[in-house]
Amino acid sequence: MIDIATRKERLSIISTILTNHPSHLYPLSYFSELFGSAKSTLSEDISIIRETLKKYGQGEIEVLMGAGGGVRYLPFIGEEERAQVMRELLLKMQNPSRILPGGYIYTADIFYNPQYVEKLSRILWGFFYKTTPDFVITAEAKGIPLAMGVAKLFDRPLVVVRKESKMTEGSVVTINYISGSSKRIQTMSLAKRAVSEGQKTIIIDDFIAGGGTVRAIFEMMKEFSITVLGCGAAISTRQPERKRIENYKSLMTLEEVNEEAQKLVFTSNI
Amino acid sequence: MIDIATRKERLSIISTILTNHPSHLYPLSYFSELFGSAKSTLSEDISIIRETLKKYGQGEIEVLMGAGGGVRYLPFIGEEERAQVMRELLLKMQNPSRILPGGYIYTADIFYNPQYVEKLSRILWGFFYKTTPDFVITAEAKGIPLAMGVAKLFDRPLVVVRKESKMTEGSVVTINYISGSSKRIQTMSLAKRAVSEGQKTIIIDDFIAGGGTVRAIFEMMKEFSITVLGCGAAISTRQPERKRIENYKSLMTLEEVNEEAQKLVFTSNI
Repeated sequence: MIDIATRKERLSIISTILTNHPSHLYPLSYFSELFGSAKSTLSEDISIIRETLKKYGQGEIEVLMGAGGGVRYLPFIGEEERAQVMRELLLKMQNPSRILPGGYIYTADIFYNPQYVEKLSRILWGFFYKTTPDFVITAEAKGIPLAMGVAKLFDRPLVVVRKESKMTEGSVVTINYISGSSKRIQTMSLAKRAVSEGQKTIIIDDFIAGGGTVRAIFEMMKEFSITVLGCGAAISTRQPERKRIENYKSLMTLEEVNEEAQKLVFTSNI
Repeated sequence: MIDIATRKERLSIISTILTNHPSHLYPLSYFSELFGSAKSTLSEDISIIRETLKKYGQGEIEVLMGAGGGVRYLPFIGEEERAQVMRELLLKMQNPSRILPGGYIYTADIFYNPQYVEKLSRILWGFFYKTTPDFVITAEAKGIPLAMGVAKLFDRPLVVVRKESKMTEGSVVTINYISGSSKRIQTMSLAKRAVSEGQKTIIIDDFIAGGGTVRAIFEMMKEFSITVLGCGAAISTRQPERKRIENYKSLMTLEEVNEEAQKLVFTSNI
């Protein structure tokens, strides 16, 4: 506990704490203890911050009244910024130097870049923010940062399904599935202690082609009696039109990849 | 461009932008365009924010003068908070229910929890913040969120070495190495386009036992003529004392794991 803070100090610190911990509910008492300020004063501070963030397209502050109430930051991305992110991303994605032998596409520079991942996470979170998952789930490895980004925005943990079983997972449930794109049998395992029966989840992945991996996560969730509230990916492919899953959201569609003509076409779904 | 902002608005928005983008250098002109304010006014705002963040243990603001100058946020964790994080973490880690058959330890709940990962990243970053890596590197999979967290604090991309070569990586360099703990031959591959000769890097991993994986990343970096500026992990083990690498920093040491006695002992290195 330190001396009573000034409004300038409080505005700076409350903005910092709330925006750095999206969706986390802070009771007003948290800030009154931190600053030695009355709750009425803090309510005024929070009104100022809420109006300001809104004005500058930096997300929203939600105030929940009553016992168990408090304030939390909802990390909406401003419309203008969202449009700019998508434009920049499409431009970057359509560079034909990404085309690899066999028509694969190099994306590691995007999915391991903290700036891009943070923005993509915010847009994906925006599809599902009305739901209340207990955790976010993905399959290793390239989707991990994006799924972690979304998990952070929900203030929930991430759970990662492994493609090979490891000794460091303990007891696992393993399922076999057919990869949608390669048509090969693959194995997926999940530590029993990672989840509990009756929980709810959102599936996040970097790339949905045939939908085999995501379908397998769905099946895995059934084994654990867990409800899937939604499924989102950064990229989905136009072909095959019929995927192994039906309801999913993606930020971009890969329309065409032509190795010979060095042509790569994406469209935005935002 | 909107109407000239009030000081209250500026304090809230500048705090939000700076603290959400650690290490990123913002020229003052960025804020003067955003707010329509004079640079002298903004300098006062930034002094207020700097003093306030410092007072509340929320990190520091660095002001770089001259052409190419600007302000950036250095995400130091306060001493008190750091001590509390380490206490909480040791308590959580020493729970004997983590012990798995074969003396392995379950850690996924920590390394996939955004709150823990963010705090551990800040402490690890603090070991290396004086260096200027071009990227952070790790090996898949469990170290990815922590390494991504550290990469974000450096405002740099992450590069991930894969344990099996994938078609989505394009041309790769592959090396074989002996895992320090399992003594088995393993393979590691890195996409050629992920890095460039002459760059500098920091290696981050979740767990260092024999040091085989980290040593292999070192060797891989030599192949690419890349300088390793430092190496950090969340956990290192007391045994074997002689590891395949010499200079590394870790947050905790795993002193003892006794499956029969259900005993698990960690010590803090902070």
